[in-house]
Amino acid sequence: MSKGERTKTAILDHATSLASQVGLTGLTIGVLADDLELSKSGLFAHFQSKEALQIDVLNHAAHRFSDIVVRPSLQEPRGAPRLRALFERWLKWENDIALPGGCVFVAATTELDDRPGPVRDRLVELQHDWIETLRISVRKGIEAGLFHPDTDAEQFAQDMYGIMLALHFHRRLMRDRGAETRARRAFDNLLERAAP
Amino acid sequence: MSKGERTKTAILDHATSLASQVGLTGLTIGVLADDLELSKSGLFAHFQSKEALQIDVLNHAAHRFSDIVVRPSLQEPRGAPRLRALFERWLKWENDIALPGGCVFVAATTELDDRPGPVRDRLVELQHDWIETLRISVRKGIEAGLFHPDTDAEQFAQDMYGIMLALHFHRRLMRDRGAETRARRAFDNLLERAAP
Repeated sequence: MSKGERTKTAILDHATSLASQVGLTGLTIGVLADDLELSKSGLFAHFQSKEALQIDVLNHAAHRFSDIVVRPSLQEPRGAPRLRALFERWLKWENDIALPGGCVFVAATTELDDRPGPVRDRLVELQHDWIETLRISVRKGIEAGLFHPDTDAEQFAQDMYGIMLALHFHRRLMRDRGAETRARRAFDNLLERAAP
Repeated sequence: MSKGERTKTAILDHATSLASQVGLTGLTIGVLADDLELSKSGLFAHFQSKEALQIDVLNHAAHRFSDIVVRPSLQEPRGAPRLRALFERWLKWENDIALPGGCVFVAATTELDDRPGPVRDRLVELQHDWIETLRISVRKGIEAGLFHPDTDAEQFAQDMYGIMLALHFHRRLMRDRGAETRARRAFDNLLERAAP
């Protein structure tokens, strides 16, 4: 990476962490400049607008998510081991990249669901890719005879998403220490239902 | 209700609808005054601070939730019919009270989970009451022999919460028309698992 790219990556790391706390729509070039003690004009050289900054943060977080969650999990054998790796890494990723306000995608979802525009569009694309990764992983398990042929990949992915969201809610808002154990039990039940 | 109470209720209806779109933290007395074309001083007579307004909105929404979701469902027979009524009414309540931005509690959760203070505290209390209603309904089903004695009420409530959150996400952000059918199927599976 060039010096300019390294600087931009460092700014995006910080911006992603900040977005996890103040929300993506709270992340303006002014707020980021104050937080980093940089000039607004210096930041404008990297991000031409608030929307460009927000989209860059989403892309940056998706890149990290791919490195931390998706790629290592796809090295695992098909079927239950691969799905379990995706699940476990998904649960932990908000710790891994030091997102103090929790998963930036979960926060962005409730923020942006009724704010049409390019930032929402990009979020939908990224979420679509992730859900598709889950569905494909289930379908490959079915093809390999590792899951029951009647398993519905779309149902599995939505149920898996729900387990993660319920954990996020119970852990972050309710500070419920039993929530993680329950999330794992729910996932075990989901895998059990898909058994051949 | 006195005229003052009626006025306050009308303001709170409007404020709840607005909070579902701009978020609870975006709901200030100034924003509400602009939106209602009222004077800020007039609104200050009803709400002494931004925080008091936000707490009043949460209480108002909880009151509506109780009227629309909880109380009619508790009239249903114990066991599966009661849980199913809670589930179905929960799914629909954001339409019932015209929350254009979706469930105000879901939005408030990701907004407030890392913002300590009295508004977050009140949200946690209200969510706790709701989760407790679900757990008690499951326990009463177990006591009456309508659910399997090994059913874990805390697990059931968390799983049920996850089904609703996954639906909220797939419906509102992804505009996935199949999501509601999948949510019902997931709930059927949950009830089946609890069968005696």
